Amino acid sequence: MAGNDRSPVTVIGLGLMGQALAAAFLRAGHPTTVWNRTPEKAADLVREGAVLAPTAAEAVTAGELVVVCLTTYDAMHEVLDPLDGALSGRVLANLTSGSSEQARETETWASERGAAYLDGAIMAVPAMIGGDEAVLFYSGSASAFEKHEATLRLLGGRTTYVGEDPGLAVLYDVALLGVMWGTLNSFVHGAALLKSAGIDATAFLPWATSWLDAVKLFATDYAGQIDAGDAEYPANDAKLSTHFASIEHLLHESETQGVSTELPAFVHALVKRALDKGHGDNSYAAMIELFQDPKAS
Amino acid sequence: MAGNDRSPVTVIGLGLMGQALAAAFLRAGHPTTVWNRTPEKAADLVREGAVLAPTAAEAVTAGELVVVCLTTYDAMHEVLDPLDGALSGRVLANLTSGSSEQARETETWASERGAAYLDGAIMAVPAMIGGDEAVLFYSGSASAFEKHEATLRLLGGRTTYVGEDPGLAVLYDVALLGVMWGTLNSFVHGAALLKSAGIDATAFLPWATSWLDAVKLFATDYAGQIDAGDAEYPANDAKLSTHFASIEHLLHESETQGVSTELPAFVHALVKRALDKGHGDNSYAAMIELFQDPKAS
Repeated sequence: MAGNDRSPVTVIGLGLMGQALAAAFLRAGHPTTVWNRTPEKAADLVREGAVLAPTAAEAVTAGELVVVCLTTYDAMHEVLDPLDGALSGRVLANLTSGSSEQARETETWASERGAAYLDGAIMAVPAMIGGDEAVLFYSGSASAFEKHEATLRLLGGRTTYVGEDPGLAVLYDVALLGVMWGTLNSFVHGAALLKSAGIDATAFLPWATSWLDAVKLFATDYAGQIDAGDAEYPANDAKLSTHFASIEHLLHESETQGVSTELPAFVHALVKRALDKGHGDNSYAAMIELFQDPKAS
Repeated sequence: MAGNDRSPVTVIGLGLMGQALAAAFLRAGHPTTVWNRTPEKAADLVREGAVLAPTAAEAVTAGELVVVCLTTYDAMHEVLDPLDGALSGRVLANLTSGSSEQARETETWASERGAAYLDGAIMAVPAMIGGDEAVLFYSGSASAFEKHEATLRLLGGRTTYVGEDPGLAVLYDVALLGVMWGTLNSFVHGAALLKSAGIDATAFLPWATSWLDAVKLFATDYAGQIDAGDAEYPANDAKLSTHFASIEHLLHESETQGVSTELPAFVHALVKRALDKGHGDNSYAAMIELFQDPKAS
């Protein structure tokens, strides 16, 4: 058996992602036991040195760290619920996609079975697993993360523990995906607007990407203002009322160029509400007050 | 009188931006004539060597390049309409904020008066004028831009001519501002979501900014797909149906964490419509078809 730096690892669930996870452990020399409902998916991994366990119970007892990557929490419970005793004393690192509530419930469930719990969110496609750029967030047991940090880091260079609340990994994940959709929607809308005037998306692209670097600087200022929480939101770059005037231009151009006005109309209504609440002289950071209000939707 | 590389320039309109423009010309040694309805605003510039013209007509006839930076197109016409003959043979570079339609109308108006027309959009605050990072877009007469490019570039290192259609400068400007609002809204929404779980915006910030670099790569792929126009939109990273499942997670987390669901609900409805139109197996680039459709709004 390998020493502590090559601790035995188990991977449950061998979809494309599960296979990539197990392969990364194998490459680093960890004794790796795998299990999947349909064992055929283990074939490549077995050739690379993995041990295929005949039952989930045997797979779990083979590893100090048990990584689970199934399609749903229901699928996870179907596999792990019958194994009660087997989980005791182990670390369960759950990379199954789910909600922050499910992550919190599963921590309680694992704790009742004597297992330390880490909930993980993977911001990478399977081909990126093991690479420097792969982002994996973990939340839950700090001591479990510390103990297995080196092993978990084999899955991605940007492996990060974000806090004790097991729901945090999921929240970081969806918040960042939200930034992606927000940015992409506005980029594609801008591309549609310029295409209506004969300009290619690839001509717009370099301007949009370099402009995003300026937007990062604005966001940096706003993040500090949001955390300061003093409701002053000093308009160091532009007042919300100035933004609003420019948003009206974007809405108007979308109308006259004959593209969809849906996105600019949404932003227009949102910022209008912030002005109505008296934020006209504030920076864009004041928008946090709208986004924090569940009644705003 | 200076040679061709120090051609005489006129600046009409001396708000904060107009003053910054004139100051940049003066610093580079251009004979600079200025005019403003209220002449007091010229005081600093005159001290720096500008000539204050007593009338707009005299200001215009002093410059080969006439830069106009007024508050509205109406204000511009009020000043320039009475001067008909004075504009003949000159280049009018109009940096007054307006619409692409107004830019196109003003080109016709200028042409009737014998002037070559450039419409400009400034993506910089006055303090940035003259710096390497200041972005100024120009559209309209290519020969007028070529003739005065070196002089116009004094106003900002990232001065760019974007095409003959005089409306293009405005369209680039508002499309880029749209990318800013889309990115900022989703960043601030994400910050609200994480704040609901006790995480500071400044802790979220570095993840959001580095993630934007990944989003740039996605956008690069999508721009190529949009320009290819073959309606295949290969899902090299993720299918729209996969995005949709994740958007449901963001919507759900926003609900359960008690923040506004407005932004994720908007994105959810938008992507749902793309799925309904059969784009589920396409990349996110397929969203261009929604944004190009004026009936979508």
